[in-house]
Amino acid sequence: MHMAHNRTIRTLCMYGLISNPLRGTISLEAKPTYLNLHKLQPHISPTCATMFRFARKIKVGAPSLTPSLTKKAGAFAFGAVTGTVLAVTFPLNVEKPKFTEDLTQLIREFKASQPISNDAVKAAAVPQFPQLDEFDFGNDQRPIKLRMEDFIKKMQKEIVAELETLDDTSTFRVDEWQRGLNGEGGGGISCVLQDGKVFEKAGVNISIVHGLLPPMAVQKMKADHKSIRPSNDGNLPFYACGLSMVLHPVNPMAPTVHLNYRYFETMNSDGTTQAWWFGGGSDLTPSYLFEEDAVHFHKTLKEACDKHDKDYYRKFKKWCDEYFVIKHRQEARGVGGIFFDDLENKDPEELFGFIRSSLRSFLPSYMPIIQRRKDLPYTPEEKQWQQLRRGRYVEFNLVNDRGTAFGLQTPSARIESILMSLPLTASWMYDHRPSEGSREERLLKILKEPREWV
Amino acid sequence: MHMAHNRTIRTLCMYGLISNPLRGTISLEAKPTYLNLHKLQPHISPTCATMFRFARKIKVGAPSLTPSLTKKAGAFAFGAVTGTVLAVTFPLNVEKPKFTEDLTQLIREFKASQPISNDAVKAAAVPQFPQLDEFDFGNDQRPIKLRMEDFIKKMQKEIVAELETLDDTSTFRVDEWQRGLNGEGGGGISCVLQDGKVFEKAGVNISIVHGLLPPMAVQKMKADHKSIRPSNDGNLPFYACGLSMVLHPVNPMAPTVHLNYRYFETMNSDGTTQAWWFGGGSDLTPSYLFEEDAVHFHKTLKEACDKHDKDYYRKFKKWCDEYFVIKHRQEARGVGGIFFDDLENKDPEELFGFIRSSLRSFLPSYMPIIQRRKDLPYTPEEKQWQQLRRGRYVEFNLVNDRGTAFGLQTPSARIESILMSLPLTASWMYDHRPSEGSREERLLKILKEPREWV
Repeated sequence: MHMAHNRTIRTLCMYGLISNPLRGTISLEAKPTYLNLHKLQPHISPTCATMFRFARKIKVGAPSLTPSLTKKAGAFAFGAVTGTVLAVTFPLNVEKPKFTEDLTQLIREFKASQPISNDAVKAAAVPQFPQLDEFDFGNDQRPIKLRMEDFIKKMQKEIVAELETLDDTSTFRVDEWQRGLNGEGGGGISCVLQDGKVFEKAGVNISIVHGLLPPMAVQKMKADHKSIRPSNDGNLPFYACGLSMVLHPVNPMAPTVHLNYRYFETMNSDGTTQAWWFGGGSDLTPSYLFEEDAVHFHKTLKEACDKHDKDYYRKFKKWCDEYFVIKHRQEARGVGGIFFDDLENKDPEELFGFIRSSLRSFLPSYMPIIQRRKDLPYTPEEKQWQQLRRGRYVEFNLVNDRGTAFGLQTPSARIESILMSLPLTASWMYDHRPSEGSREERLLKILKEPREWV
Repeated sequence: MHMAHNRTIRTLCMYGLISNPLRGTISLEAKPTYLNLHKLQPHISPTCATMFRFARKIKVGAPSLTPSLTKKAGAFAFGAVTGTVLAVTFPLNVEKPKFTEDLTQLIREFKASQPISNDAVKAAAVPQFPQLDEFDFGNDQRPIKLRMEDFIKKMQKEIVAELETLDDTSTFRVDEWQRGLNGEGGGGISCVLQDGKVFEKAGVNISIVHGLLPPMAVQKMKADHKSIRPSNDGNLPFYACGLSMVLHPVNPMAPTVHLNYRYFETMNSDGTTQAWWFGGGSDLTPSYLFEEDAVHFHKTLKEACDKHDKDYYRKFKKWCDEYFVIKHRQEARGVGGIFFDDLENKDPEELFGFIRSSLRSFLPSYMPIIQRRKDLPYTPEEKQWQQLRRGRYVEFNLVNDRGTAFGLQTPSARIESILMSLPLTASWMYDHRPSEGSREERLLKILKEPREWV
């Protein structure tokens, strides 16, 4: 009996989160009641384990499926079952009737199994998510774009799971979405947490999109990538995948952080790779500056850079200082980090290795900071100052950020995933000036002139 | 003795608000104590009367100058004096030492005069601001740009004074500013009220700027204005003046309103007029729609249009619907109004007349709406919805509005005056969707498809 469970669950799960965005809507008419989760654990896939990790936080004991999690079609459904939790994903290439059949069978089997205690569920649900080092992307023989896809998907789950450990009352909402009709232009997964105890708003997104670049965009790109050759009609087939993240903490003493790593490719008409490059970076935006935080953040990034090229940190730190500037205010958005684009001047495997190191350095670069700042005391005035700084963040993202502009102008782009970077709340006071010698004024001074932190 | 007061005050005031932005900083070291205001009234200029009208609302009884009002240099200073109020402006072409001297003399005279009762102050301070009809701009023989300047200055005062009647606890802060060094590029006056009882944020700005348009801007303009001929180096001398206004009420039942009227001119190298045009309009942005408000607003604008051209309202209403669109959301910012640009196809006097009618129709178009909505009861959820709509307002202004983009890109622009249009507070919730059949959802539907209101 358990073997049957396992097989079904594995079939259903394994291709879910790790395959392309999924088609079809499913409505769960039958109400599963029990799932002998601890018995399944050893057999489930890493993906499935992560899903149970999400699921663990759903209010246990609800007699029916939670509508907010099942209403979003096609991706996967969580069913909150008395005493435990059922997580199911749906594979891509299975027709809808088959979904329902499989699920009905699954539910029938659950019903036949025995209820378990909450304690047993807790013990069972301890995530056994494999460490990233278990995946050796470097030795994988598949094209880099497929390995980059796998990598950002796994990093998304790892980061989301880690951020959820900071707050036992909030979980990320997970939305899979597709671009264009039937996902022909690709899609993505948005994980968003809102109004939490630690984060006012946190978004960890991945997107994998492809299509045709219009002639104007091609012309712009040619400036940086000489090998680009559009097809006869001026269009150019492209592929892009990336992970992007913005975390806005509640506590004004805890800094906002932004991260984005992406891979871009243009294709010849026969589908072979034409030009390719990596871009990315991460940067820190405090409302109140603790210098040790800026030093720790930069130091961690520098270590990741130094493993690959002793020149990277210096170059990419400078690039970051130049990019994240609110031009109309002649003010940096924050205390920087690293930023780079159009990286194509080395062996692609070596550059992919650098991307993996940098993205993997995120949790060590930020977790210690958020852990020591999230519970510091603060005044209403300090919260107000944070709100003004959030306003500046909105200004940069909507006025200066090329990535946001590109996203908003892309036909069929998913606006909610692009603007997930905006804070939950922001404020603009006319001609606000902090008092002389205050912490707020000191921050503004630092934002006028980039500093060396390492 | 009173004659001396009057002369000094008149010298100081008359050129203040009605002349160009002022130079120099003044610090008031001496503390004036008394000002026999009611004796001065019959002699002061309209400008001065408006200033006393502003001043009347400063907390009377403060023993010293209010620092927030005196710290802003160069424009004018209000001194709150026991029992009454002293308002002083500084003329443009007077050297700094002379300022101080005049002021010291003025203060000396005040000290010598007698204190008056609060009742007498109240009676005296009833504004005797002349009605706009007293100014017949149409028959004035000066160039239109000078008359437009006068007109927008007077309208700014009239509107600010009228808005202040809505809230007996808040006054507009008035900032004069200049563009470039020594005001060579022009300047303006920003009147801003923040955190009031009726308005969360309200800004009524005028600006009068001139300089050289760079070749790229000239090329863009040539598309709409064939007579434009840049000078040999590709630059083009320009002049622009305008009034722009955004009012964000506190109450979610009261709509935000935006207005902008402007005159633009390009000049030949000998200083004569080359091309000229008017632009402008006003539009309404409710968070909760009362259809009668939209109807009243549009009807008032239509009446102003119809006086000049029976085709204007239809054309400019459509233009407004097309312009105020948050493109990435395919959603109108609000319920529209009128909008037009590049208006140059008639006799300039006739067009200036139309501009005057439209701008004058603002108070009748909006005051009845704000009066009937400002005190309606509302829930925290309704306030939250308003905050989300404010977020959409920020998106339009920072992403889609050509005027804001032009302003932010203009060298030496005054950012605080441009971004005064942003609300005090705004919010972005990930993928927020109002419940079916709710008022919030009905508004969204209306914003998807422009309606005819008249």
